[in-house]
Formats: sequence, structure tokens, C-alpha cells
Amino acid sequence: MRSALIVGTGAIGTSIAMALRARGVATYLRDTDHGAARTAERVGAGTTAAPPGPVDLAVLAVPPATVATALVALQREDAAQCYTDVAGVKALVERECEALGCEPTSVVGGHPLAGDGRQGPLAAKADLFEGRPWVLVPTEHTATTALNTVLAMVALCGATPVFLDAQRHDRAMALVSHAPHFLASLLAGRLRDTGASVLRLAGQELRDVTRGAAASPELWTDLLSTNAPAVADVLEAFAEDAIGAAAVLRARDAPTTAPLLALLRKGAEGQVTVPGKYGVPAAALATVEVVVDDEPKQYAQLFGDLAAAGVAVDDVAIERSAHRGTARMSLTVSATGAPVLVAELNMRNWHVEVV
Amino acid sequence: MRSALIVGTGAIGTSIAMALRARGVATYLRDTDHGAARTAERVGAGTTAAPPGPVDLAVLAVPPATVATALVALQREDAAQCYTDVAGVKALVERECEALGCEPTSVVGGHPLAGDGRQGPLAAKADLFEGRPWVLVPTEHTATTALNTVLAMVALCGATPVFLDAQRHDRAMALVSHAPHFLASLLAGRLRDTGASVLRLAGQELRDVTRGAAASPELWTDLLSTNAPAVADVLEAFAEDAIGAAAVLRARDAPTTAPLLALLRKGAEGQVTVPGKYGVPAAALATVEVVVDDEPKQYAQLFGDLAAAGVAVDDVAIERSAHRGTARMSLTVSATGAPVLVAELNMRNWHVEVV
Repeated sequence: MRSALIVGTGAIGTSIAMALRARGVATYLRDTDHGAARTAERVGAGTTAAPPGPVDLAVLAVPPATVATALVALQREDAAQCYTDVAGVKALVERECEALGCEPTSVVGGHPLAGDGRQGPLAAKADLFEGRPWVLVPTEHTATTALNTVLAMVALCGATPVFLDAQRHDRAMALVSHAPHFLASLLAGRLRDTGASVLRLAGQELRDVTRGAAASPELWTDLLSTNAPAVADVLEAFAEDAIGAAAVLRARDAPTTAPLLALLRKGAEGQVTVPGKYGVPAAALATVEVVVDDEPKQYAQLFGDLAAAGVAVDDVAIERSAHRGTARMSLTVSATGAPVLVAELNMRNWHVEVV
Repeated sequence: MRSALIVGTGAIGTSIAMALRARGVATYLRDTDHGAARTAERVGAGTTAAPPGPVDLAVLAVPPATVATALVALQREDAAQCYTDVAGVKALVERECEALGCEPTSVVGGHPLAGDGRQGPLAAKADLFEGRPWVLVPTEHTATTALNTVLAMVALCGATPVFLDAQRHDRAMALVSHAPHFLASLLAGRLRDTGASVLRLAGQELRDVTRGAAASPELWTDLLSTNAPAVADVLEAFAEDAIGAAAVLRARDAPTTAPLLALLRKGAEGQVTVPGKYGVPAAALATVEVVVDDEPKQYAQLFGDLAAAGVAVDDVAIERSAHRGTARMSLTVSATGAPVLVAELNMRNWHVEVV
């Protein structure tokens, strides 16, 4: 692939442009918001100049509801040899493209599983897709040349292609992303009018569960409304789960708490199956806690000793105690690296605990 | 307060013992599991020897369902001047104590909002309660001397006392802790039999939402069953929310997505009200991202420069990119500290982005 037209220079489109450009692809940027396109140009994603002729690939990084009309327009102007999009829902896009009479052989729908909810070209990162799955939904009409061009783009972005059909993709996203987000949002909504005297009793779990509800309501309205039936299915099934769980709790004369325990055990088993930050199962990681003085110099000293120990740290969490002037640094490392790290840190007189 | 008897040397009981002992209180440890009591003694929480006479305060750090019987037994042996417990539910404990004929003037029910789900004396920390709320539920019968002794214990543990009545406490916990946990567990349970090919499409939000479901099913069975009616109320109300949300999604002929947007906006507004890690509202914090080479030495160098900048870092997250050999360090700092930090790091030639 030598040239690409990126239509839509939000966080995802600009990140793709950056990644392709870093690998030597000529990238052309276009956005109905000219300011956004110029910003993307300024951060090094490519040029806002028009391409000299049809590019190898046009990437439609526009909202799901506008993909089909944008695709038809691009095909009419013969903008590219082939086309892909990045919409988080695929069945609707496929249906609309067919309804509008798009030429299907040159099109491969796509969905990169990346992004942290931040929007706009300034949130773009060339490494956004690295190691992430990138779903592709080729159809029976897709030409092999188009598929190979899109596979090349995925590879240049450092992502792993995953083939699915559009319906399966949408049901999967409803289950692992759309419905969980909506449920978190509904729960957070219940807290809106709760007083501060009650909310101060909240702990880490409520923060974790509701964190995502802060994400753009506009963006999520788009995602949820375009995958509405699949999301509604999961919400209704979940409501049944909640009603069943309430019934278990209300069975006061029950001789045992066994049904409740069984529900919670099922949850614990399900949690284990959720892939971790780097796709690594939680069991392969360990946490080592180090108590330090809450002084930046101590943090620097600790990281110096970590460097000397030669153990890669996957994550760090700091729990500061202003009262005592100490802090706990929780270091996430591989389960095999943990004992090495503990030995090295003990040798250097740190106060270490394996969790 | 000069002496305390800790009954139940799990993580919470042992942590209280450690905190009191560090402030000069003579702490006596007792557990039906003698091994646990001896472990608590070994980690410096006090002595397993019997106290020479009635102690100033007995702390019942036993499961909620066993508080009342343990209290009656302690009062019969005249173990202490006054008594408190740490159960996460309060109305049931009050009811059972009354039913068993406990002497009420010497008793103040309590609930420290602390702990990370880890169990046993080895998970204890003397600083576990620092800066955390500690609910107390005095009744009309409570003697002032008993209340003052328990307030002294809370102060020695570095926590902030919060007075509530038992019913209000239980409804509050159902809303901000028990029901959210159960909902997270039900959602995780739905994922148990989902294939890996679907789960690999999950992102950070699913991890966040389901994280807590890994916590001990046995412990949560205890908590949920002892606060069952209040939790069932929240679950049923939430099920209605979910069914209503599904109906909004299924209204395909709706002229606008406004009702959906309104639900999501309510969620975003609710999320903002959840207190952050140090009780600080999210708006008072900022995140500064620094791109570094993924080498421990670079991490150490960065923390050295953070020390020189003199800005306190509240938290760190590392996003490693094995492919490029770089890492993004996300530094959480105060909103006022962020520009100072950015200027200092820019001066030292780090690649910095404010998020």
C-alpha cells in the first residue's frame, strides 16, 4: 500500500493516518470539519491536500450512521481502489451500504478495538492499535485484492486481524462492551441524586464499576442506537438475572444461602475469563507491594532499584497516606518475575510484601 | 483507652489491633481459629495471652451473622467495659443483639469503610483505616462513656467517624456497595460461558466493571444475605431501569435518539458524584502522559525528574508497547500541579502530553 485517504480525522482516523505515515504510506486527510483536518495535518498525520488520483485505500473514520452515505459519495468520485470503515457496529452499516447501492467488491468493513474514549485529532496516537484486535467483516462479494489491502493496513497499524460476520460482531460487542457500558451508565445515573453523605461510603468497586459512564454520551448514543436490538437483548436478559437474584435474596425462609453462593461463584468464574490489560490472564501476573516514604525522591530511588533488578513492571499503583507520610507502591509484574523482584528489593532493604 | 480485646483476627481485626498497638494500647487477640490468632501475634498485632481483667474495649471483628452470639458470650464473661463490632450490615446485628438480650448501654455498632477484599491476618495493615470513614450506629441506649471509647478507637486508627442509624447505613451500603457488587457479579457470570473469540474483543471498561466479581463469594454471600431486603430493593429498581432502557432502544420508529442521550447524560452526571481515590473530585485531578523508552532505567530517570520537579504524583499507570519498545506513563497529579509538571518535564526534554 502506497497511499491512503483518511476521511474523518477524529482520534481513530488520525491515529490510523499516523501509523500508516510512519510506515511510509502517503496519507491524505479529509474532514467535514476543516479545522480538525488541519489539526491532524499539524500533528504529522499527513496532508490536507487532495490526492493526485485514486488512492490504494480509503478509510472511513466517520460516525456509524454516516458511513454508507460517505462510502457512496467516495465511490462516485472514484476516490480509491478499495474501502474500509472503522464503525463499532457492522450489520447496520452493511445493510445501509446495500440499500444505497454501494459497489461491494471493493469494500471490507472493519472495527479496530482500540481507543480510550478521548476524541479529536489531538487524542490520536500512532501506536493506538498495537497488539489490539481489528475485526474485519468481509462478505461473499469482497474481492481478494481489497481484503489484502485492508489486511496490509491492519498489519501496518500493528494490530491483529480477526474475521467475523457482521451479525456475530454486533452481538459480541453488545455483550462485552455496549450493554456493560449502558448498565454502568444506568447505575451511575441512580447515584446522581444520592447525597454526598451516602456517597462518601463508596469504595473502590463503585469507582471501577461506574468509571466508564463518564464517556461521551453523544458517542455512546450513536453506538447504542445503531446496535439497538442486540443491546436490548442483553439488557433484558440482564434484567431477568437481576430480578432472579432479588428473588433469591427475598427467599428469607430458605434453609441455606447455597443459591446465592452459586450466583456469586459463577460471577467469580466469569471474571477470570475476561482478558487482562495485555491479553495476559490475571493468574500470570503478581503484585508486589513496597512501603516507601511519600517523597518523590524515594519513588525515584525505588525505580532506580527496579531498573537494577531488571524486572519489567507492567503497572504501578500508588496509595498515599498523607497522615503517616508513607505510600504503598503496588507493582504489577509477571508471576515468574515476582520472586526475583522481592529478593532484589529485600536485599536493598525495602519493606516488601507479595500480595 | 489502654487495653483492647480483638475477637476475630482476620484482615480487619488484625489491622485494628496493629493500629491500636502502634499507639500504645495493650492489644489482646482471640480467634476460634487459634492459628489465625497466633499469626496475628507473629505480625505484631498483640498477644494471644488472656487479658488480666476486663479490657476497656472489645472489638468483634467476626462475620455479621455471628456478632450477636459472640457479644452475648463476651458480656457474660464480663470481658470489657464496652463493645463494638465491624460488620458491614447493622440493622440485623442490632435486631439479633436485642433478641438475645445483650446489655445495650455498653455497645456501639461500627463499620469501618476500608479493606481491599483480601482476607486473613497476613493481609492486615496498620494504616488500613487512615482517612477512611468509619460508621458508628449508637442507639438511644448507648452510654456516653461507651461512645467516647469507641470514638477514641476510631481516632487512633486514623479514621473519620460518621454517625448514622442502622437502617440508613444498610440502605446506603446496598446502594453504593452491595448491589453494585452483585450486579458486577451477575454480569461477569453471563461471561463465564462466552467463548474466548468473543471475549478478546473486550476492552478496559469490561475489566473495570467486572473486576470486583473476583472477590470472595463466601464473604459476599454473608454480606448480601444479611442485608437482603435493601439489596433486593436496589436490584429490582435497577432491573426496571434496564427494561426501560431496552424499551428506549427498541423504539425503532422514534423520531430522535433524545431519550437515549438523556439516559446516558444522567449516567455521566452521576459518575461525577462518585468520590475519587482520596475523596477528591475527579475535576481536581489531571493526567499528564509521558512517552518513554520501555526500559526500567528510563522509568527511574523520569521519577528522578519528577522528584526534582517537586510535584506530588497521586497515581501512575503504565501502558507498555512491546512492539515499539516504548511506554506511556500516565501520571495523575492535582489540576494545579499539572502545568508546573509539564513545564518542568518539557525543560528536561521529555515527550509530554496533557490529557
